[in-house]
Amino acid sequence: MTILYCAIICGLIAVLYGVFTSMQILRNPAGDEKMRDIAAAIQEGAQAYLGRQYRTIAMVGLAVAVILVLTLGWLSTIGFLIGAILSGVAGYVGMNISVRANVRTAQAARTSLQGGLTVAFRSGAITGMLVAGLGLLAIAVFFWYLIGPAGHAANDREIIEALTALAFGASLISIFARLGGGIFTKAADVGADLVGKVEAGIPEDDPRNPATIADNVGDNVGDCAGMAADLFETYVVTLGLTMVSVALLVQASGAELLGLMVLPLIVGGVCILTSILGTYMVRLGSNQSIMGALYKGFWTAAILAIPAIWFVTQWALGDMHAVIGGAGFLDGGSDAMTREALAGAATASATAFTGMDLFWCMMIGLGVTAALVWITEYYTGTNYRPVRSIARSSETGHGTNVIQGLAVSLESTALPTIVIVVAVIAAYQLAGIIGIAFAATSMLALAGMVIALDAYGPVTDNAGGIAEMAGLPDDVRERTDALDAVGNTTKAVTKGYAIGSAALAALVLFGAYTTDLDRYAAALGLTGPVNFSLSNPYIIVGLLLGALLPYLFGAFGMTAVGRAAGSVVQDVRDQFRDDSGIMAGTSRPDYARTVDIVTRAAIREMIIPSLLPVLSPVAVFFIISWVGGREQGFATLGAMLLGVIVSGLFVAISMTSGGGAWDNAKKYIEDGHHGGKGSEAHKAAVTGDTVGDPYKDTAGPAVNPMIKITNIVALLLLAALAGGAV
Amino acid sequence: MTILYCAIICGLIAVLYGVFTSMQILRNPAGDEKMRDIAAAIQEGAQAYLGRQYRTIAMVGLAVAVILVLTLGWLSTIGFLIGAILSGVAGYVGMNISVRANVRTAQAARTSLQGGLTVAFRSGAITGMLVAGLGLLAIAVFFWYLIGPAGHAANDREIIEALTALAFGASLISIFARLGGGIFTKAADVGADLVGKVEAGIPEDDPRNPATIADNVGDNVGDCAGMAADLFETYVVTLGLTMVSVALLVQASGAELLGLMVLPLIVGGVCILTSILGTYMVRLGSNQSIMGALYKGFWTAAILAIPAIWFVTQWALGDMHAVIGGAGFLDGGSDAMTREALAGAATASATAFTGMDLFWCMMIGLGVTAALVWITEYYTGTNYRPVRSIARSSETGHGTNVIQGLAVSLESTALPTIVIVVAVIAAYQLAGIIGIAFAATSMLALAGMVIALDAYGPVTDNAGGIAEMAGLPDDVRERTDALDAVGNTTKAVTKGYAIGSAALAALVLFGAYTTDLDRYAAALGLTGPVNFSLSNPYIIVGLLLGALLPYLFGAFGMTAVGRAAGSVVQDVRDQFRDDSGIMAGTSRPDYARTVDIVTRAAIREMIIPSLLPVLSPVAVFFIISWVGGREQGFATLGAMLLGVIVSGLFVAISMTSGGGAWDNAKKYIEDGHHGGKGSEAHKAAVTGDTVGDPYKDTAGPAVNPMIKITNIVALLLLAALAGGAV
Repeated sequence: MTILYCAIICGLIAVLYGVFTSMQILRNPAGDEKMRDIAAAIQEGAQAYLGRQYRTIAMVGLAVAVILVLTLGWLSTIGFLIGAILSGVAGYVGMNISVRANVRTAQAARTSLQGGLTVAFRSGAITGMLVAGLGLLAIAVFFWYLIGPAGHAANDREIIEALTALAFGASLISIFARLGGGIFTKAADVGADLVGKVEAGIPEDDPRNPATIADNVGDNVGDCAGMAADLFETYVVTLGLTMVSVALLVQASGAELLGLMVLPLIVGGVCILTSILGTYMVRLGSNQSIMGALYKGFWTAAILAIPAIWFVTQWALGDMHAVIGGAGFLDGGSDAMTREALAGAATASATAFTGMDLFWCMMIGLGVTAALVWITEYYTGTNYRPVRSIARSSETGHGTNVIQGLAVSLESTALPTIVIVVAVIAAYQLAGIIGIAFAATSMLALAGMVIALDAYGPVTDNAGGIAEMAGLPDDVRERTDALDAVGNTTKAVTKGYAIGSAALAALVLFGAYTTDLDRYAAALGLTGPVNFSLSNPYIIVGLLLGALLPYLFGAFGMTAVGRAAGSVVQDVRDQFRDDSGIMAGTSRPDYARTVDIVTRAAIREMIIPSLLPVLSPVAVFFIISWVGGREQGFATLGAMLLGVIVSGLFVAISMTSGGGAWDNAKKYIEDGHHGGKGSEAHKAAVTGDTVGDPYKDTAGPAVNPMIKITNIVALLLLAALAGGAV
Repeated sequence: MTILYCAIICGLIAVLYGVFTSMQILRNPAGDEKMRDIAAAIQEGAQAYLGRQYRTIAMVGLAVAVILVLTLGWLSTIGFLIGAILSGVAGYVGMNISVRANVRTAQAARTSLQGGLTVAFRSGAITGMLVAGLGLLAIAVFFWYLIGPAGHAANDREIIEALTALAFGASLISIFARLGGGIFTKAADVGADLVGKVEAGIPEDDPRNPATIADNVGDNVGDCAGMAADLFETYVVTLGLTMVSVALLVQASGAELLGLMVLPLIVGGVCILTSILGTYMVRLGSNQSIMGALYKGFWTAAILAIPAIWFVTQWALGDMHAVIGGAGFLDGGSDAMTREALAGAATASATAFTGMDLFWCMMIGLGVTAALVWITEYYTGTNYRPVRSIARSSETGHGTNVIQGLAVSLESTALPTIVIVVAVIAAYQLAGIIGIAFAATSMLALAGMVIALDAYGPVTDNAGGIAEMAGLPDDVRERTDALDAVGNTTKAVTKGYAIGSAALAALVLFGAYTTDLDRYAAALGLTGPVNFSLSNPYIIVGLLLGALLPYLFGAFGMTAVGRAAGSVVQDVRDQFRDDSGIMAGTSRPDYARTVDIVTRAAIREMIIPSLLPVLSPVAVFFIISWVGGREQGFATLGAMLLGVIVSGLFVAISMTSGGGAWDNAKKYIEDGHHGGKGSEAHKAAVTGDTVGDPYKDTAGPAVNPMIKITNIVALLLLAALAGGAV
């Protein structure tokens, strides 16, 4: 229990860091009146959007809560509500800091690059630490209540279901937030560009463009609030599911089991501490490299995490070399063959593991994080072949820019896949499925730092917009642009990292699914074991249906952005037509009207795609059960869970890396290569950037929560079916 | 044996149809001297390319043949050579007809639309019937030799290996032909457009453009020769593998087994006859609808196939209601659980089937073909929402055109997947894995007709080019354009159809793989059953690695087109610079030089990507065996085979349908919508078309042979390992 308390304290420290640093940020000057006006308009728009989005989500959430009360009881419903509310809070607070830090970053950039960097990065760090801190507190306090005051044993069925429901709450909010925010930000961005840059011929962020405030609001509600909710979900699901899979799979004594179950929490806790230390290391070196400054922070957090993880593993498990558990396999025994193999191999080392094994698994997780950061930088950074090849191909026109961008996006999936495959094999060899779970946990342990790098992006993007709109001197805009360029890479990093961890988590989730199936076999009315062999055609059916989901979801997301951007274009055209003073600069456009239009469009468009991963597992299970019997229903559903990750990993990475590469190819040309701004190559690069926008900020990142939801809905469906409620 | 002879006679009839109709076509007038000159240049370029491509492939093929002699013996090597040579012949003959029919179509279009349609379609039908006829003859004669003069039993190991090797030969050639041809055609097309339309501002097919002959050559070597080799491969693999899986899986008496094994051959045979009848029904109705005319031919072939299939099934199997076989499951017993389930269910009807069951399975195959044709037309036809939405989004610019096109391409995967899933479940319920195999067979039985519709495309495309270059009157060009627009849809249909059948075939191939594993268990040194359960993490590893292949392959293909198009642009620029008479129209550009440059580029670029699916299964097997043991090596390899189809199906369909939709959105605008030719929307639509080009004609269609090769290499690897040769 001491360890659990320590984890809770680490969570509280993260929240305190957030409060303390917020006060620091808010003490910074907010610029002149014009800047404050613009910032106020952005704040207002963002508040209005988020308020309406949360009201809509709350209705869906309440409906789901009612279903949960009826099927799984109160404890799970409370878990669901905790996850849902805190996911919302993480996004809300992050956005509120972001909309206040933007103007202060612009103001600080008036004096120095370092000043702007510090304000922007610190405000990102607040979001990062709050997400990690709230995530840790949610699981740790809930777990403490369950095994303490509520008096459950650590691996009681109630605890497992309640933690799963908590993860569900976080996931459900996050898919709406990611998708709604993503549609908002890109509809506003694409719409503003089309009608402003293309039709009216005015520069980006020109105050005469009625959509320009909506564009800046979008950065906050999409890239900040949506991202924060998404990463909160990833954090909670990964840590929670690691605990659940320990409870389900490891056969150990009470104390040993408890130690193993709190280990993910304390690993998360100490990594929050190393991440906080890391945030203080973000300083420009003599070469003025912004990416270098951010890396200093990241590497500090990552390297300090190594001894910290070793220490807490030792602490939680006692002897690092004692053998723990007797079942490390993914499979809980629902497959007779594997069960036989397990029985035969029970004495072999593969089914049990030591603390050292787990430590190495967590090192694998850190290694995967570092590798994904490096690979993403390679594919999206302006210093490397991929981005430069897109920039070069822009010389021959729009078409070749897009062809090369698509080629890069397809190619960018290869190295991450190989890294993940190697990690899966290595962690599995060390400690079976539990090893994979702990590798995912240590990946997420650094979430605070990774989110800090990401949330920094929208702040600098907004700062640039404010500098432009307020007519600040060119050198200020240059500084904010330099800060912003790095943001494209860090944003892509977070997405690759989230989806990479999702691939590891999906294996753990599938393990939980098969174990649950086995445990509930009698209650589910299963007469024989479920056949998960690839030679069962229903498995192929499930894999294909699962693989379809990210494609369909991506299609919905892309179409939604197109449609919503169309309504922005229409509104701006109307405003220009009705008031000729806007283009003349004599009257102020109605920013709020455009914001309102995008708000309504984004909320309308997010509903159907978000329900796709919630309803498809249920529909597939019942249809296949009806056609082929209940065993095949469970088999198909299980295969669907893996199909969605097998295809989702590729769809998400190709979209997020490809989009980042397109964006930076444009920036590279704007830096004066291939003819620079205004050249034909630049026009082609703008097209590529527009295409990449919904790829990288709407459809691609929302695949991550989509994968989790599909999996968690399947787990809850099992529990509900076993409880006889469905 | 009578049935086998009849199948051989049907194959001969197809070849005779080809010879007879060729003579008919060649008797048509070839136009004036200018037209004949142009056609001669195209013929020469196509011959030169194909000659050099085949020489390159021959070297790879010989190397493979040597490996086969050493590992699997002479019989398999002969099978491989038959498959390889006939695949080459199919492409070669098809192309030779195509380059002669193009000018005759242009000439016929001078008098009437029906005249042009007849020449173009008949020449397509020659390719179609030759592909189907040669494919049928290859398998049927080889099988006759094996069970007749060579004295093998129908399910001898030698026969199975030899038929697999024959399929391998066809696949190996076809991937080179598809990819090399695809790179050629799109590099020439994109290069010609970029430097002609965009830089020099001259129309498509303008004789002053040095790349214009290369573009027309490309249509023939890519869309005709490459496509023919691909479909030959699909035909041979599907029919051959159905026979192999019957031999492997069905426990029946000698006569029953032989009847079942020749059934795919005679089904293919009679469907050739109904297809030939169908070709004579292609006539314009009173509404002058070209698509309607083509559909008349297709539906005639499909509807006549129903009684024909019923009749030959009855003939081959005797009593339609007698129960055949005792093992219809995909699984041959390599998974202990399934083996138990099989034993338990041996008396149940699911494991055995009747002739009626097979008949219904074949009806499912015809249904899938019809559904895929309809779905493809919906997604690529100018009369429906998807193409029109792309056209409409072109109004707001290049970026929104591409976004909407990508959204359509993602969405277009949904209905085909659902159709395939329903077909898999239905066929499996009727007759197990054998049912799925026969559904795939009946899909392919109509190949002659489907290829006819496709091969018609490049002929009309060329006819339009010749009309333009020879300065024929506008109404001729209008007629050829009308013929060509339909070609975009029919081309997309064939690709969707090929990849759809690949999804069914992949299940059969996997069944063959597991059965082989089981049969060779002792020889392979397997101590226990291979665990194909999804709960084995190596299965996920295999699925992910397999899923990566289409992405990597697509990236290679797209990059190759970009690079090769770049060398075309460079050459054309050089020609314009060195001889100012070209643009003035006073001197003739050096067409052959450009053709030669594209030829060399295409052949250089096709090697590495084509070897990817050949070498990856071998590499993955040996690496995983080394890390995790031989059992896991086989498990990972098996999962990889399914991973490649699970992801390849989506990659291929999204690329081919999306590309077709982009192309026709451009045509729709050129028909006068959204501002028509020369408008901003048209420019945006040209960008989309350029992007779609390598999608639909290079990367997308080559995924089909890639999937087959990966699977067949795995089967041959097993056989080689079992033979102790590796």
